[in-house]
Amino acid sequence: MIFKAKILDIEAGAAVAVLNEEEASRLNLSRFDRIKISNRQKEVTAIVDISRRYVMPGEIGLFSEVAELLEAKNKDILAVNCTPRPASLDYIRKKLDGASLSSRQIHSIIRDMMKGRLSEAELSAFISAFYTIGASEKEVLALTNAIFESGKKINIRRKAYGLHSIGGVAGDRSSMIVVPIIASLGLCIPKTSSGAISSASSTADAMSVLAPVSLKVGEVEKVIKKTNACLVWGGAGELAAADDRLIKVRYSLHLDPSSFIISSILAKKLAESINFFLLDIPVGRGAKIEKIAEGRKLAREFEKISKNLKINMKSIITNGASPLSSYIGPALEAKRVLEILEGKAAEPLLEKSITLSSKILSAAKKTRYAEARSIVKKQIKNKKALDKLMEIIVAQGGKEISSEEVEIGKYRKKIESKVAGRIKHIDNRNISKICRMLGAPFDKKAGMILCKKKGEKVERGEILFELISDSKERIENAERMLKIVYPIEIS
Amino acid sequence: MIFKAKILDIEAGAAVAVLNEEEASRLNLSRFDRIKISNRQKEVTAIVDISRRYVMPGEIGLFSEVAELLEAKNKDILAVNCTPRPASLDYIRKKLDGASLSSRQIHSIIRDMMKGRLSEAELSAFISAFYTIGASEKEVLALTNAIFESGKKINIRRKAYGLHSIGGVAGDRSSMIVVPIIASLGLCIPKTSSGAISSASSTADAMSVLAPVSLKVGEVEKVIKKTNACLVWGGAGELAAADDRLIKVRYSLHLDPSSFIISSILAKKLAESINFFLLDIPVGRGAKIEKIAEGRKLAREFEKISKNLKINMKSIITNGASPLSSYIGPALEAKRVLEILEGKAAEPLLEKSITLSSKILSAAKKTRYAEARSIVKKQIKNKKALDKLMEIIVAQGGKEISSEEVEIGKYRKKIESKVAGRIKHIDNRNISKICRMLGAPFDKKAGMILCKKKGEKVERGEILFELISDSKERIENAERMLKIVYPIEIS
Repeated sequence: MIFKAKILDIEAGAAVAVLNEEEASRLNLSRFDRIKISNRQKEVTAIVDISRRYVMPGEIGLFSEVAELLEAKNKDILAVNCTPRPASLDYIRKKLDGASLSSRQIHSIIRDMMKGRLSEAELSAFISAFYTIGASEKEVLALTNAIFESGKKINIRRKAYGLHSIGGVAGDRSSMIVVPIIASLGLCIPKTSSGAISSASSTADAMSVLAPVSLKVGEVEKVIKKTNACLVWGGAGELAAADDRLIKVRYSLHLDPSSFIISSILAKKLAESINFFLLDIPVGRGAKIEKIAEGRKLAREFEKISKNLKINMKSIITNGASPLSSYIGPALEAKRVLEILEGKAAEPLLEKSITLSSKILSAAKKTRYAEARSIVKKQIKNKKALDKLMEIIVAQGGKEISSEEVEIGKYRKKIESKVAGRIKHIDNRNISKICRMLGAPFDKKAGMILCKKKGEKVERGEILFELISDSKERIENAERMLKIVYPIEIS
Repeated sequence: MIFKAKILDIEAGAAVAVLNEEEASRLNLSRFDRIKISNRQKEVTAIVDISRRYVMPGEIGLFSEVAELLEAKNKDILAVNCTPRPASLDYIRKKLDGASLSSRQIHSIIRDMMKGRLSEAELSAFISAFYTIGASEKEVLALTNAIFESGKKINIRRKAYGLHSIGGVAGDRSSMIVVPIIASLGLCIPKTSSGAISSASSTADAMSVLAPVSLKVGEVEKVIKKTNACLVWGGAGELAAADDRLIKVRYSLHLDPSSFIISSILAKKLAESINFFLLDIPVGRGAKIEKIAEGRKLAREFEKISKNLKINMKSIITNGASPLSSYIGPALEAKRVLEILEGKAAEPLLEKSITLSSKILSAAKKTRYAEARSIVKKQIKNKKALDKLMEIIVAQGGKEISSEEVEIGKYRKKIESKVAGRIKHIDNRNISKICRMLGAPFDKKAGMILCKKKGEKVERGEILFELISDSKERIENAERMLKIVYPIEIS
């Protein structure tokens, strides 16, 4: 069959082509059926969509994904043939029916997904099945490998160490302190991170205030060679590309099957060529994981799969019930990290970073933990860690910078306590919501400064925290939000 | 926030609005987030999609559904506000977590779906959860009521009887014979049907050869008042509207949780104001249900839910292993029905129609089955059933017609047997595939005539069946298809 192309300059999230309703019915094609479209040498398997008015009989509407793959322009003449539905759909159906999938079948689903051959509705059923039915160790392993193979790999010709946090704790920029400490001791520690999904800032968001973080894989390899480390964005789908696509579908229902959390993180460790990493699982009220037993269970699942992938790892459960720093938001956190390394500030963040660094060092050098701690502390005190961070900043294309030079938002609003009492709880989740209302992480200069710590006494009228943003309107919006989302509880 | 509308004349399957990627990121909006869009008095909750190029900052792309609801034109200035995600998403998530949903929660999901507030990925997760986890009787009941309430109702001020088949048997036009028989006996029997989904023809497809079937609810009520019956298309989403939407999402993964099959059918019975109906479950090789135990289980589930809905019903398991008529395809089946009622042909279809009619009659009049059978047979013999069918045809806007006047496709190709032997099996599923390749149900005149019955002897070179179509190309395509999909097995 021959059709005239009508280009639709918008992404569909999959390879979708649109046929006229009457014509599709005449061809016995329904929505979600598959067709093969050819434009000279190029060929694509597309998912059929139906429209009453947008395309006329004889026309075929192409969403961006298909148009690009076919290199098709408006009014190009395309050949269209029916094609059987991808076998992946049978595998998804099989999983829904309660059967286990083989490694080959899981690879085939991820491959078809990357080619745009699976619709979001179909992917959603796939993830739902893993969520409701669960996954065997073999399935998680296959999923991890399939996600890893969908992207590129950072090549490092030596032993590499890593740190990964489950996240969810405001002001937790441990990586920005641990990485320079460990690298300053001659160990290799590459760190990639994604943009913040629900919090005020990720490592990459805060680091981007000090240096470029959107580096290609080849550039990252050069930075590591030069400095033993990097602090970059996992970005642009170069590493573990399939993960980005899966996260998009999981987003709206917050569907986080542990099989997907584990394979997402471990696929990235494979892509980073990591031999050993420390997994930080913050637990507590307001954190992603609220119960210790749940944190331990996750740790065990991680350890089993890592072993199979020949990645060494240790997990540590940390206190996730309060923020780790009083500065929250990308620029504020970057500023605080510099202050800590400059010896001008101490926060719970410093203590945690020392602990994590010492754990990594003692695992790498087989030294006792106490010994490792004293080595780590020395690297902070003698400013070797600060020097290393500057080295990394420069290698990534930035300039040396001191904490005073980091700019934060020009609008600030101090919030006073309406009651007297004692700080009972500071909620990480609510802090994230308010910081996002203030513009973080997109507005790097937005965020909050907390003026009180958990357990401290507070008088009526005393300042509890400060809202910071480059937009006055956002400050007002955040103030209104405080009426329903309150970050601090006083008893 | 103020945006300029950019209309996208294509359906998204839900209320979707597109924002520029950078701008969305600045507003902390992600795909699948919800926004409220207003255009003067009109207001819509839309699902956010993101595009890099199609919309510029300051613009908002509107798919047809949103544009229509807002009555928006290109360059209209629209107000946009953030809005919380619909509670339905939490209910879907709850079901995925294994909890049961309350009636109120299921109604809320179906209502939000009808307003376009749920994406296909979200609906797919909803259906997947019902599929993998199952549904309680209460949940199926709530689902049935919610689907029923999403559409209109045919008002009938007297007791109404019905017949429904699970389908899947080629040439099974029982309804077109049972309905006039029962109506000719003074009982009210409204029949609506959808278009064929996987078979060569539905009741509505075959009836459309004889009379208009796309009638509005008000017109259907008039036809019933006049004739005690109707044979129409359920159509245009007027009855049990939510069902159409759910079927679209279920299509590609063939996701048929029994909870959805049952609620779909019973919601239509509620919409048809049926008090008693007979459920025909064809079972056998090549039918939708292959095992008797499975058929019985489905019957029991149906009976439980019907009872709760105060619909009386009986089920009957019939032989679904062979076609019921040698004429297959909309016009061919309509022709055969007329021949049977004219007393010119007898097929297994006649015997089955007598059985089904007698079951309905004996349930309605509390007469013994044997007595009911003789009454039913008389209505065929004295042509009262034929007269009643003509009455229905005329009431729906058609003209009286005899079997000779029904036109079938002008291209015909006789297929000879390549071997001698005995007919071992005639496969309903494969017959449907070939008829659809010939153009059915869209091409009403396309189909097949079978020349042999199961168990009959056949010589080499004898004609097995005939392919019929109004397109020569389709005959050739179907012939090629015979190489892989063969409808008749000879041993």
